[in-house]
Amino acid sequence: MAIERVLVAGGGVIGSLYAGHLARRVEVTVLTRRPEHARALAAEGLRISGKSDFTAKLHATADPAELADFDLGILATKAIDLEACAAALSGRFPNATLMTIQNGLGAEELVRGYGEWPLVSAVTFMSGVRHSDTHVEYELDTETWLGPYAGTTTFERVQEIERLLAGSGLHARAFPDLRPAQWSKLIFNATVNTVAALTDLAHVSRFADLDEPTDLGFLVRDLMDEGKRVAAAAGVELHEDPWEMNVLAVRKGETQAAAGAYAHVPSMLDDVRSRRRTEVDFITGALVREAERLGIPVPLHTAMYRLVKARESAYS
Amino acid sequence: MAIERVLVAGGGVIGSLYAGHLARRVEVTVLTRRPEHARALAAEGLRISGKSDFTAKLHATADPAELADFDLGILATKAIDLEACAAALSGRFPNATLMTIQNGLGAEELVRGYGEWPLVSAVTFMSGVRHSDTHVEYELDTETWLGPYAGTTTFERVQEIERLLAGSGLHARAFPDLRPAQWSKLIFNATVNTVAALTDLAHVSRFADLDEPTDLGFLVRDLMDEGKRVAAAAGVELHEDPWEMNVLAVRKGETQAAAGAYAHVPSMLDDVRSRRRTEVDFITGALVREAERLGIPVPLHTAMYRLVKARESAYS
Repeated sequence: MAIERVLVAGGGVIGSLYAGHLARRVEVTVLTRRPEHARALAAEGLRISGKSDFTAKLHATADPAELADFDLGILATKAIDLEACAAALSGRFPNATLMTIQNGLGAEELVRGYGEWPLVSAVTFMSGVRHSDTHVEYELDTETWLGPYAGTTTFERVQEIERLLAGSGLHARAFPDLRPAQWSKLIFNATVNTVAALTDLAHVSRFADLDEPTDLGFLVRDLMDEGKRVAAAAGVELHEDPWEMNVLAVRKGETQAAAGAYAHVPSMLDDVRSRRRTEVDFITGALVREAERLGIPVPLHTAMYRLVKARESAYS
Repeated sequence: MAIERVLVAGGGVIGSLYAGHLARRVEVTVLTRRPEHARALAAEGLRISGKSDFTAKLHATADPAELADFDLGILATKAIDLEACAAALSGRFPNATLMTIQNGLGAEELVRGYGEWPLVSAVTFMSGVRHSDTHVEYELDTETWLGPYAGTTTFERVQEIERLLAGSGLHARAFPDLRPAQWSKLIFNATVNTVAALTDLAHVSRFADLDEPTDLGFLVRDLMDEGKRVAAAAGVELHEDPWEMNVLAVRKGETQAAAGAYAHVPSMLDDVRSRRRTEVDFITGALVREAERLGIPVPLHTAMYRLVKARESAYS
């Protein structure tokens, strides 16, 4: 079944990057949280700058009741808002494939609780900067990785989505099994996001420094090693080594910083700076819960988890 | 030898609390870092409010060359500035007893490198809030603990200083051996200061919460347990259990907060908020170095050390 109509639920940076690019190829509707956001998008379109440069026309609404049928739904809400989103779609759109993109683990199971849709698991390494309701800058033009979730859909369907994303100017890669990639990203995120949130550092070269004993790279590596032990106990062979992902990302960041671009601010640091609730329960929390289930000690991730929760409690 | 003239080196909160109170009993000179601070103190005196309430007259200078003879020198500089202070006194004041008050370990050895003065080790639990160069509020009226350092002076001399402090309205307690108290405070400080600096939390009841698995109290207790293992390996029997110190302090803080007073902001959090270099190298650093010397693993303190160093590096 061809993909002609796409719903993007969530008008944050990642949702906007999908919606804007895809709207150049297919009919796109964005489901936003705020009605004024939807009105602005419908009236002005969505401008994407940075790695891409265009303004896309799309539909937008803040009211799930107004949604027309779609073939593919990209659920790009924050992990915290995913359950409400799945509930709003419950009992409708039986022919749609839904794709989850949330950080952490468990998004698919959660959506599964609200309907029998075919599900695609995805993780993305894209990033951007939100300039306004109708303008997002495409910062890191890295890949989205996607795979069929637990036999609910086929690899062919996933490859169809991969082609659609690639054809719209994004980078995408289909996997028969996403778990190795999901776990690589989980370990990377649980480490880089919490370290950034607590140190107020963007993801800079210091995350890979291994010169002095007090250097941050040692902590980053120790956190990743803990995560790798949990993945091994879960029987997952990682797609990429999280430490190598870290080293590559900070090198790329340095090149971009030298070219005058900003250093990448991990979302958890952005949340802490804006005194928003972070996704730590879904990222580090998912890793710590898996570790407990498997009987693997993760004292450093447990410490980071408690520190970030305490940091959030200091907002008030 | 009676104590009639006291030098207080360092015009920060702690130095000011000693100088102001002692000036009511003996002749006090404050050695400040900034000349305008010394001029203001000499002209206006030093106002102490809060737990005490008076204005003290005292001498003040920012030039060590101007210092007259003194019987007792309280070195109340930040740990970072102690070496320069000891160097400035080197070769002079052979009859003076010097008392170090710095957080961490190793202040006495450092001063010892600059002269053969009799040395008194001290730690203080007092705290205050600096309102201006000439006004400090006395917040926590807790004890100063002091003891002779490594045979360089007698317990009687220490008791003499204890009486002088008590007679000036401060709380003091002389110990034949300060190490058990120093280590209790080191473990308390290495934990409470770094946790506060990273979470942006004052020392509030959350530091003792042990309800949910993500509660901060578990991390605080784990950090203190690591510290206690190092103390045990060093052959030190702690004077007070750091966890009990923590519970008592947050309970006291709650009572004061209910009465409208502020929650106590640990110095390392105050430093981070003001983007100043912290004392982490002298506090957590001292503990981690001792642990390494003794072969005791301290992964959590090592992580906190790296995080605070990274937090400092984010200032620029």
